[in-house]
Order: sequence, then structure tokens, then C-alpha cells
Amino acid sequence: MKADKIEIFDTTLRDGEQVPGCKLNVEQKLVIASKLDELGVDVIEAGFPISSPGDFQSVYQISKRVRNAKVCALTRANKKDIETAAQALKYAKNPRIHTGIGTSDYHIKYKFNATHDQIIQRAVEAVQYAKSFVDDVAFYAEDAGRTDNVYLAKVCEAAIQAGATVLNIPDTTGYCLPEEYGAKIKYIKEHVKGIDEVMISCHCHNDLGLATANSLAGVLNGARQIECTINGIGERAGNTALEEVVMIFRQHKKLNFITAINSKMLTELSLLTADMMGMMVQPNKAIVGANAFAHSSGIHQDGVIKNRVTYEIINPEEVGLIESSIILTARSGRSALAYKFKNMGFNVTKTELDNLYIEFLKIADLKKEVNEEDLNFILNNYNQGVSCERR
Amino acid sequence: MKADKIEIFDTTLRDGEQVPGCKLNVEQKLVIASKLDELGVDVIEAGFPISSPGDFQSVYQISKRVRNAKVCALTRANKKDIETAAQALKYAKNPRIHTGIGTSDYHIKYKFNATHDQIIQRAVEAVQYAKSFVDDVAFYAEDAGRTDNVYLAKVCEAAIQAGATVLNIPDTTGYCLPEEYGAKIKYIKEHVKGIDEVMISCHCHNDLGLATANSLAGVLNGARQIECTINGIGERAGNTALEEVVMIFRQHKKLNFITAINSKMLTELSLLTADMMGMMVQPNKAIVGANAFAHSSGIHQDGVIKNRVTYEIINPEEVGLIESSIILTARSGRSALAYKFKNMGFNVTKTELDNLYIEFLKIADLKKEVNEEDLNFILNNYNQGVSCERR
Repeated sequence: MKADKIEIFDTTLRDGEQVPGCKLNVEQKLVIASKLDELGVDVIEAGFPISSPGDFQSVYQISKRVRNAKVCALTRANKKDIETAAQALKYAKNPRIHTGIGTSDYHIKYKFNATHDQIIQRAVEAVQYAKSFVDDVAFYAEDAGRTDNVYLAKVCEAAIQAGATVLNIPDTTGYCLPEEYGAKIKYIKEHVKGIDEVMISCHCHNDLGLATANSLAGVLNGARQIECTINGIGERAGNTALEEVVMIFRQHKKLNFITAINSKMLTELSLLTADMMGMMVQPNKAIVGANAFAHSSGIHQDGVIKNRVTYEIINPEEVGLIESSIILTARSGRSALAYKFKNMGFNVTKTELDNLYIEFLKIADLKKEVNEEDLNFILNNYNQGVSCERR
Repeated sequence: MKADKIEIFDTTLRDGEQVPGCKLNVEQKLVIASKLDELGVDVIEAGFPISSPGDFQSVYQISKRVRNAKVCALTRANKKDIETAAQALKYAKNPRIHTGIGTSDYHIKYKFNATHDQIIQRAVEAVQYAKSFVDDVAFYAEDAGRTDNVYLAKVCEAAIQAGATVLNIPDTTGYCLPEEYGAKIKYIKEHVKGIDEVMISCHCHNDLGLATANSLAGVLNGARQIECTINGIGERAGNTALEEVVMIFRQHKKLNFITAINSKMLTELSLLTADMMGMMVQPNKAIVGANAFAHSSGIHQDGVIKNRVTYEIINPEEVGLIESSIILTARSGRSALAYKFKNMGFNVTKTELDNLYIEFLKIADLKKEVNEEDLNFILNNYNQGVSCERR
């Protein structure tokens, strides 16, 4: 059976860029947008044009620059926002307006002080108005994660009738569990008239560490677009990490989903985004963290040296890393030590290794990592019959 | 119905500490162990005593120090490892030995070059030998994530018959999807004789960003212990983050699971671990990242100011943070600006705010964050009839 394509909607430059400290200038955004286009994302959300003159310029310039991806601009459900977005998207080959409104009781009551029917009316008017400028209109039901499914389905149906081509079901507050989010998408897929003619999109936040799992649950229940960011940046705990969902589909081929992403560029995009935004990636970040492919415990190193497949599910080359690294620490075993000695050009006997290992542990208990210089020191002392205790 | 307790097994000092760069000395480990005990974890995995003299000492000293939690030591399935662990645990009030062996075909073939029956025999001997030293013996089926369920159930049954009190089902390579991992736990729960007398434990790695979701899937299918680390540190992309699973159970009360964790200490433990190990936490890390409770976009800030519940599912005080911060950037709206002015002691009229906002955006487009000094500059210039363009 032919694999279903999952569209990757990158919002690094919108949801990612709105984060404290992440602000980029127009030139920087153009660099990232060009790289995202090359990476193979299907849609680039370039900004929120009404929010500031700088953001308008970014969307305007990115629209001119991008060759393949659709370029999307965010709006609230009002005319001024939509007109401004349409102007900013003027030169985009494939423009998309992303408009919407809060649909949870929390939003309807506290943000809008409106009725449920008034919200639907505003949603319809916004989609219709956006449609007067562009063909491709995505509607977001903000805080859909906490919106009652029956009302949510009603809003979605109205948005489709008004001309929406994409329905974005955001878990704005990162509240949902995977089963709940999956059930929500399933409910919409089963109860909204015209749903098969449009695309359902997941936009999940990571407040409870579940954004990736929720996006996967969405896809398994009928969504075909994932909104995500490089390194998972975004409001609060961030969005779904692009690199994680892409690699899940690559690693789990039996799911029968594909994306258009060139995974060999993932490491490059991660570094570029982290550097430009000054948003560092923790070493234990999945796929793109500095330690993501590093094996340090003795048991793991021994296994990897015998055969990578024992502890490694992804070949680091697939994400653009040359090789995973073996780092020597106090947890490393004899085989890692022998492997390093071998790489340095020394073949040691089993007895020699046993003795060298005792010396190695003395150093390792003092240091975080044992480097090549330390290993030379150990070897030299050993050959001269000196113990490392005298160091 | 009374809530089921989920035991929190912290392996920050074992799986976390074995990571490149994370090495701690014995004194540092004692500080963290004491704090973990105070936090309320049920089990502290203190180290892997055979691996180095320093690790032996850590387990030995932590065993003497810890008052409430069980103290656990890791071993491979051999006598020397187990004897050493038992010695290190000598003074623990509630000692646990954690022994086990690889059960996936990858491990059996490439690591052990053994038969399936030989692996079961080694597992049984290890559990029995550990049992001769302590009552509480956990058995791990390494790489259970990629182990055939029928064989895995056979191994588990043998371990229970040999005296295991806990069965740890690790997704060692971080390969599983939540549905698969949940189904694996369900299979074991339904097919292993004596399973209701022991505890099933989840040990998930985050290589695909799914560790938290997999642990949750494990619990929903019968597991009652989660192995996890502060900040999700650990081999490669790390382990399940303690703070994430704890807060999931707190936020989703309808799941009817509780832990003994004092969530108000989570921020403190995160900072302590990050500082001591030199393993920084990315700003967009769930629960404990610097931005986890920061609202920056205008839409979000406006909502939070009207009512926190619009965009915030967790009260930051619950994890030990005094308040979530509102940070002004080019994405901020008028209400955030007015909120900040108000906090600074200035009440501005609607017209004043409109004019000040234009000046604010000029500064905001130049800077990542607009601070109080900038706001004073804007206010002063405004009162003197000077535009910020002249700055």
C-alpha cells in the first residue's frame, strides 16, 4: 500500500520566534526560511504580520524568497489582521492565511466574553474574508485541546462551509494526553460534514512532555499535517519538535507514513536555529542533542563496539552526523578502552588491558571524561612501570 | 475509588550520571541523594558498584545517608557484580539489587552469542544469587522494547519464580511507540504467571521524544513503577523526565494515580542537578525550563492577564516557581505593555497606550526583549514629545 504523506508545517519563525530571547531580524529569518525550504517542509509559517512592522516585513520578504514551500501568515479573526496578512503574502507563490479564534469555554468566557454562536459567526466571517484574498485558508480552533468535542465539530463544519482548506486543532495549553488528543481528532474525522475534503492539522504544545506523542496520536486518527518547530522551540515548553516526528516516521516504516523532509539536514538546521536564536539545545535532546548518539556506559559501549544495532536505533548519518562518539568515563569498560587504544594505534593484550584498565579507572574517578592525552599518559606510565596514583 | 500509587524510581545518579560530562564525586552524589529522599522518590538507584571504586563508594555512602527511600544498586547477571552490589548496599535500610540481562535477539546474538535458554538460565541464577543477599530484587530484561513478547513473558515468569519482586521492562534503545510499549506491558500482565504478586516497572529512553508517553502507556496497562531522572538526563537522549510524569498525574486527576512526590521541590531539584552535573536544561524544557511558564506573544499575554487559566494549565507555584513571567517582545500586545507599566506604577489612558505602543514596537523590533529601562526611556520621551526613532 502506498504510504500516506504527512505534511510538515514549520512554525519556527512564528510560534518559535515569539519566545523570550528568540527574536530574529528580517535577514536572519530569510536565511532560516531558505534552509527550511531546502529541508523540504511543506509549509513555512513566516510570521504574524499585524503584530509589528518587523514581522510584516519578514513575511513579505520570505514570500518573495521561498521557492517550494507554501508561505503562511497568522491572523486573529478580524479584518485588519487578515488584510495585513494578505498584503504581506502578496508575492508568495503559494500563500496561505492561518486565521482562527479561541473555542474553549475558558477562551469564550474570559478572553471574548461572547456566546458560542457568536464565536462561530466570527470564525465563519474570518474564513470567508481570508478566502477573498487567497484560496488556501487554514482555520485554527484555539485551545481545541480543552474544547468540548461536540461544539468543536460544529465550529469545524462551519469553517469548512466557509471555505477552509485546513483545520488546525491546537492543544494550545499542552494539556491533552495522547489518547484524548487522538480521540478528539477521531471524533472530528467521524462527525464533521465535508471533513474528507480538507486536511486536519495537529498543533501540540509540550507543557507535559507529550507534544510529539500527541501529534503521532493525531496522525494515527486521521490528521495529515503536523505543525512543529526546529528543536521544539515555541511558547512556554515549546511545540512538537520537527526532527522527532520526522524520525519516528522514518524509523517506524510499518506506520506507512512519509514526509518530504531530507533528514540529513536536521543537524544543520538544529545548529543554525539554536545559534541564530540563542536558544540552546540540551545535550539530552532527542535526535539533535549533543549526546543523542553518544554511548558512555561500559555495557552500552561494549555492545556498540560489537554491533551498533545493540544500542542504536538510528544511524547518526541519517540525521547528518558523521559518527556517534564513544566517550570514556568512569562507567566505561575494557572494550571501550581497547577500542580507543586501537584507534590511537596501540593494540594491547588482554593482560595489558586488565592492568591498563585499573590505571584508567583511577584517572576516570577524578575526571568527567578521559581524553586521548590521559590515555597517552596512562600508556607511557604503564610502559615505565609507574602507577597513575603518583600522578 | 482510591487512587493507585505509582512508585517513582529515580536513576539520576545511575543512568543520569553515566552520561558524558555528568560525573559527580561522592560528596555531590550524597547531596543529590538527600534531596531526592526529601522530594519523596520511592527508590534511589545510587550507582553500578562494580563499575569503579568511586561508584562503589557512592552507593555505600548513600546507603548510610538515605532515610526513607529504598536504595538500589545495578548489576549485570554475574556473581561478582552481585556480590559487589550487596557489599555496597550493606548499610541500606531498604536495599534493592537491580540485576538483569539482554533479552532481544540483537543482544542475545551480538552481545552474548548465546541461546535463548542460556539467557533464561543466567537470569534465574542472577536473581537467585541476588536474593541470597537481599529480599528486594528487581530484574531487568534489557532491550525488552525490541524483545519478542512471547519470549519476554517466558523470561519474566522465570525471574518471578526465582524470586524477583520487580520486573523492569526497559525500552533500552528508545525505539517503541506508545501503543507498542503499552501493548507489551499488557501482554506481560496477561500472560505471566505470578505477575500480580510483583511490580512492573517502566524504563523508557527518549531517542524519539516518546519516553514520557511510553511510561504513561506502561502505567495505563498495568505498570506501577516508573524509572526516571531529574531533567530527563541519561544515556543518549536521556530517560523519562521525573518532573513530567509526576505533573501528568497531578494534572490529570481522572487517571486516578498518585505519586509521593512533593512537586514544590521540582524546580529546586532541577537547578541543583543541572548545576552539579553541568547538564543545562533548555529553556523550552517541559515543567522545569526557564520559559516553561513564560508567556510572550501578545495574544497569550492578553489572555493570561485576563485570566491565567486561558493559557496556563499548571500553577507555577505547584512546581516551586513564584510566578510566571510576562516578557515583552515585538510579539507582545498593548495589554502586556499596560500590565508592565501598571507594575511600574504608571496607569496610562487608552490613547496614551496606543501612542506608547507605537514607540514600544520601534524598540521591540530592534531588541530581543524590552526591559524596564527601555520602558522608562519610552515613557520619558513620550512625555517630552520625542519619538523613539531618534534614539
